This record gives sequence, C-alpha cells and structure tokens, in this order.
Amino acid sequence: MYKVKVYVTLRESVLDPQGGAVKRALHTMNYSEVEEVRIGKYMELTLTNTDDVEKRIDEMCSKLLANTVIEDYRYEIEEVVPS
Amino acid sequence: MYKVKVYVTLRESVLDPQGGAVKRALHTMNYSEVEEVRIGKYMELTLTNTDDVEKRIDEMCSKLLANTVIEDYRYEIEEVVPS
Repeated sequence: MYKVKVYVTLRESVLDPQGGAVKRALHTMNYSEVEEVRIGKYMELTLTNTDDVEKRIDEMCSKLLANTVIEDYRYEIEEVVPS
Repeated sequence: MYKVKVYVTLRESVLDPQGGAVKRALHTMNYSEVEEVRIGKYMELTLTNTDDVEKRIDEMCSKLLANTVIEDYRYEIEEVVPS
C-alpha cells in the first residue's frame, strides 16, 4: 500500500486573489507581519500495491489533480506496510 | 523573514465528498488502484521578522486559516535569511 501526498500550488507568476483576501483578513486581525499568502491544495491518496507508482501518480497529477497551465505540483510517495 | 507552510486537513471522522468525486474521476480514468482521496488546503505565508512566530502562527491557524471543528492543521516554520 502507498500513501501519496500531493501539493498543488499556483505558479509564481499567477495572481492569487484568495491569498490576497486571507492576507487582508490577517492584517485586520492585527497580524501585520504577514507579507504574502499563497493558497494551494494538499491531497492525500491511498493506493493499493501497483507497478509504476511514480509514473502513474505523475500522470494523475498532470491529467486531473493539477492544472499545469497555472499550477505546479509535487508529490511524496511513502510505502506503507499494513501491520 | 520567515516562510511558513500550513497544512489544513479534514478530520478523520469528517466525510470528504470532494475527495470522493476525485477518486471516482480517477477510477473512470482507469487508475483503479486509488483507494481513498482526502483533499485539504496548503498555504504558504511569508512573514517579516517578529517575536513569538510560533505562537502567532498557531493563533492565525486556529482563528482564521482552519475551522477546528472539522479540520486539523499543522505547520512548518522556516527562517529565511535574505541574500
């Protein structure tokens, strides 16, 4: 079994209005030390044993989980031994 | 300066319909090895130097960034030295 963590973030050049809204909200709450907020997605996938895990995860990310026009992705694959 | 990574995930007991939809989409695309998908948020904050960073980040998470009734959060704080 595999546990996969996928991180999807907006590309550096893409405007993040949601992050801007969160930043303003934090400033209103007196957290004025916050300079920038960027918001992304975090996904945890559980996979049964299969071949080519890394290749298949990469495909899932580029085809469905991330929009590669505006987003970058990275992932961590961890093999889990059921106890 | 600090770079803070915040991960917000749904609590184990909370249903994740968005994750379920992504799982079904992946099955339709023949990634039948996917057993479970849980979707969360990932945020990157940039902070200017300030005291009590950890305490203040914890407050931001519990007050605004996460809904602690249904979500858990964790964070990583990294000090960045401007070059």
